[in-house]
Amino acid sequence: MRHYRLTLSCPDRPGIIAAVSAFIAAHGGTIGESASHSEPDTRHFFMRQEILAASLPFGADGFRERFSAIASGFNMQWNISDSAQKKRMVMLASKQDHCLADLLYRWRSKEFDFDIPCVISNHEDLRSLAEWHGIPYIHVPLGPENKPAGHVKILDLCRQHKADAIVLARYMQILPDAFCAAYPNRIINIHHGLLPAFVGARPYHQAFERGVKQIGATCHYVTAELDAGPIIEQDVIRVDHSEAVEDLIRLGRDVEKTVLSRGVRYHVEDRVLVHGERTVVFR
Amino acid sequence: MRHYRLTLSCPDRPGIIAAVSAFIAAHGGTIGESASHSEPDTRHFFMRQEILAASLPFGADGFRERFSAIASGFNMQWNISDSAQKKRMVMLASKQDHCLADLLYRWRSKEFDFDIPCVISNHEDLRSLAEWHGIPYIHVPLGPENKPAGHVKILDLCRQHKADAIVLARYMQILPDAFCAAYPNRIINIHHGLLPAFVGARPYHQAFERGVKQIGATCHYVTAELDAGPIIEQDVIRVDHSEAVEDLIRLGRDVEKTVLSRGVRYHVEDRVLVHGERTVVFR
Amino acid sequence: MRHYRLTLSCPDRPGIIAAVSAFIAAHGGTIGESASHSEPDTRHFFMRQEILAASLPFGADGFRERFSAIASGFNMQWNISDSAQKKRMVMLASKQDHCLADLLYRWRSKEFDFDIPCVISNHEDLRSLAEWHGIPYIHVPLGPENKPAGHVKILDLCRQHKADAIVLARYMQILPDAFCAAYPNRIINIHHGLLPAFVGARPYHQAFERGVKQIGATCHYVTAELDAGPIIEQDVIRVDHSEAVEDLIRLGRDVEKTVLSRGVRYHVEDRVLVHGERTVVFR
Amino acid sequence: MRHYRLTLSCPDRPGIIAAVSAFIAAHGGTIGESASHSEPDTRHFFMRQEILAASLPFGADGFRERFSAIASGFNMQWNISDSAQKKRMVMLASKQDHCLADLLYRWRSKEFDFDIPCVISNHEDLRSLAEWHGIPYIHVPLGPENKPAGHVKILDLCRQHKADAIVLARYMQILPDAFCAAYPNRIINIHHGLLPAFVGARPYHQAFERGVKQIGATCHYVTAELDAGPIIEQDVIRVDHSEAVEDLIRLGRDVEKTVLSRGVRYHVEDRVLVHGERTVVFR
Repeated sequence: MRHYRLTLSCPDRPGIIAAVSAFIAAHGGTIGESASHSEPDTRHFFMRQEILAASLPFGADGFRERFSAIASGFNMQWNISDSAQKKRMVMLASKQDHCLADLLYRWRSKEFDFDIPCVISNHEDLRSLAEWHGIPYIHVPLGPENKPAGHVKILDLCRQHKADAIVLARYMQILPDAFCAAYPNRIINIHHGLLPAFVGARPYHQAFERGVKQIGATCHYVTAELDAGPIIEQDVIRVDHSEAVEDLIRLGRDVEKTVLSRGVRYHVEDRVLVHGERTVVFR
Repeated sequence: MRHYRLTLSCPDRPGIIAAVSAFIAAHGGTIGESASHSEPDTRHFFMRQEILAASLPFGADGFRERFSAIASGFNMQWNISDSAQKKRMVMLASKQDHCLADLLYRWRSKEFDFDIPCVISNHEDLRSLAEWHGIPYIHVPLGPENKPAGHVKILDLCRQHKADAIVLARYMQILPDAFCAAYPNRIINIHHGLLPAFVGARPYHQAFERGVKQIGATCHYVTAELDAGPIIEQDVIRVDHSEAVEDLIRLGRDVEKTVLSRGVRYHVEDRVLVHGERTVVFR
Repeated sequence: MRHYRLTLSCPDRPGIIAAVSAFIAAHGGTIGESASHSEPDTRHFFMRQEILAASLPFGADGFRERFSAIASGFNMQWNISDSAQKKRMVMLASKQDHCLADLLYRWRSKEFDFDIPCVISNHEDLRSLAEWHGIPYIHVPLGPENKPAGHVKILDLCRQHKADAIVLARYMQILPDAFCAAYPNRIINIHHGLLPAFVGARPYHQAFERGVKQIGATCHYVTAELDAGPIIEQDVIRVDHSEAVEDLIRLGRDVEKTVLSRGVRYHVEDRVLVHGERTVVFR
Repeated sequence: MRHYRLTLSCPDRPGIIAAVSAFIAAHGGTIGESASHSEPDTRHFFMRQEILAASLPFGADGFRERFSAIASGFNMQWNISDSAQKKRMVMLASKQDHCLADLLYRWRSKEFDFDIPCVISNHEDLRSLAEWHGIPYIHVPLGPENKPAGHVKILDLCRQHKADAIVLARYMQILPDAFCAAYPNRIINIHHGLLPAFVGARPYHQAFERGVKQIGATCHYVTAELDAGPIIEQDVIRVDHSEAVEDLIRLGRDVEKTVLSRGVRYHVEDRVLVHGERTVVFR
């Protein structure tokens, strides 16, 4: 059922939940999911509520106008989104297809709601996969000489396709700082290691060398600092001495795609609130 | 910090959160944890809020008086408890000590707040363990001829010790119906199988015979029907062919005590709301 | 690297490992993976060894001839298979595609070695998916009037396609006993419940009603008794009150496909030895 | 049942398993558990076998004499131990008792076989706990001025008590290099972070700051380099934004004690073979 998702954060003080829910109740709004969190140390407050669209006498714009006075009063960072407006998630991929194939599958089976305006890649390998799903595939070659120019072009393509957010589905390229800055907390990466362990290249090789008994993957927002952005989701799988590096890579793929798809779902359903270097995820 | 825990459930309709939080805000109440859930199928609503005791101008009794009009208006089942009033959890045990030892350890290390007025057992085996912790140990022999009488006595002891709830820490005896009825949703059992699989006796033997690859334990409230009460918590551990029944028993002990201690914590912190045969657990 | 997989089981007694490994060593064989298990209660012994094909002066047939005397001496049930002979796994599907799509992906990406001679379904829905992978899709309608005849036809098709084993990728139909008997321990099913809990139809609805906190899936060999065959693999995922039945179904799909793909891999790599109603799985 | 545990590692080549098992079979030995591993990259071979003591006509010393020629021929690093000779595990603790209490419980309930000749601590806090179990408690104060001397004394005490290995049950002190060198691969530590993440002090605070969604613990052998020794066992638990640092500490305790007790069990049952900076653990 169509609903609005209200997310907000502000300094904690008595009366926030009361003010917000009184506003919604005054307009006859029916609340579905509702969750809040107050961080004891920083005294910062976070909330997410789903309101049935049909229960309100106005739309998201009308909500925005009427709610802004309350929001100002509590000094809120806030947003309201409409579930009927599917988020446009541009996919960036390279040669490996497991994460892209998994997201395309979930999109095709309507597991959760989002649009994929296009897949952009620095290789031709995954064209057939995308096009079978009916999704435009754009090849932007990235040689050693034209990486900055190539990324300017990709950024342009994201804008042309009106991307709400960008998913790095094992994209394997480091984005320039200007690219990262253009979509703050809206570029979602999957790292094939349990951050902060195994930053950078070849995390499964690093994990094998160190002899760890658990490997994992991390879905996080991209910032200018490599593999250091706010973590959205992580998961692990047990391994032991019998697994060679290739086995870690094989087992890890399943964790990567699971963790990325969860992170993407949390993002498109407005479940993630970023606070500094940490996230609040209302699952 | 001392707080009141408000739990409630009622038929869902617009304005519940608004009414409750406006009431709290009107008295200057500061909300810590807050969680709610609306069950789509039954349209039933559940809520739990922690309110800082020092932020209110009255105590739990004062809250009760003032809040009852709101509660009636929404047809709420509700309760308010004071974290300073530790729940009195009487332990019933038999010969196996792993669950009792674990709970005594958590009590002693103040991992969460509860009192243990006494340990009651049909055997003498665990006396030293309880008494080292400074907790009275009461032996009530239960021969084949005096089980009903023995359980009448145990029920009397629970009442004398003002039990808020009773924990069956691998008690191994079936409680008479009248006993179950005396403490509805307040007798907590640990079953050494992942219910509804492996009801009744020797669940690890049953699991071994069936060749399962996951074994588990279930913490649930006791009802008159064996192993059928509302489930509070469950967890599992992976096993394979290399584990004999004795290994399942050994591995299972760790799951049992973890699951029971979580269930007891959820109960003493008023995190469990029972609705029919299911529970809402605000963890 | 090409290898032979020797699997055997027999009554346990001293000297089995010695006899087998002496035989292999006498012909210069290099052993890769090696695993054995002795079941204490039944005194039954199980072994699996991978032998590098290039290290032996003969092939699988030559091995069979020479080894049979040893096998008889120990009263072994045994088999040797050649990794170069990929197993032919016929897929039976219905309308739901998550398990089939997952297996096709793993086949296409050569995650492990097997062939899919065809996909057979009682519906047309998944034709495009199979054919994009270049795999023949055969539609065998199964109305209420022709189920037995339809299954005779499907069994014929399996034989025509020289199936080594059959995978029920959420096939949703009960196979006739004669069909089960034609491929003993070679029909692999995925059940969307953690057996022996939630046998039969609508296991997620059953799980929701019972209010469990863990849901799971079971990969097992099919026998004439519904959902009762030897279990190959199981896994679970945590759920709580916030998940409606549709959420259990959504979350369960990921467990189902993971568990089924593991089970299929164990089977095609000859890692599963069946003993009565239980399995030994050398992972 | 009393058994000998043979562990060995050597460069891989054909015939190792044959030679070892022929030797055992020639003396009528019955093999219980048996496991081997060949590391593809380094071509190094590892094996562990349990042999029923009663099935051999000689003891561990007799085995040692007769087997040494085979061992030399394959250039083996090897060991044979007798399950009847319980390993003497000296415990070093500080003020926190959860790991020590857990190990004492498992020792007392004979979950697996080991002796605890004494508990040594730089504080008096845990005396009562140890002494209730009937285990000598030795207090060695470690002020800023006498740490080196104190550790010389502790090392002496370990030798006097004929320690086979030393368990750091949340000991919280850095051992001098000479101490580490005295018991190579025989000092077992529990680190309250999922190494290599969160090395050093206050790992839960580090984990909280980084906003991770999984926290873990690591059991490893101690080397001169802090938190860098070979990893024996690791496990994790899911956390989210709702957990404050104190909650991570509370939840982490359960992981720490589980991981440490597994690591200790693997060590005392001779399941851990160290190879460079990695371990082979035959669970």
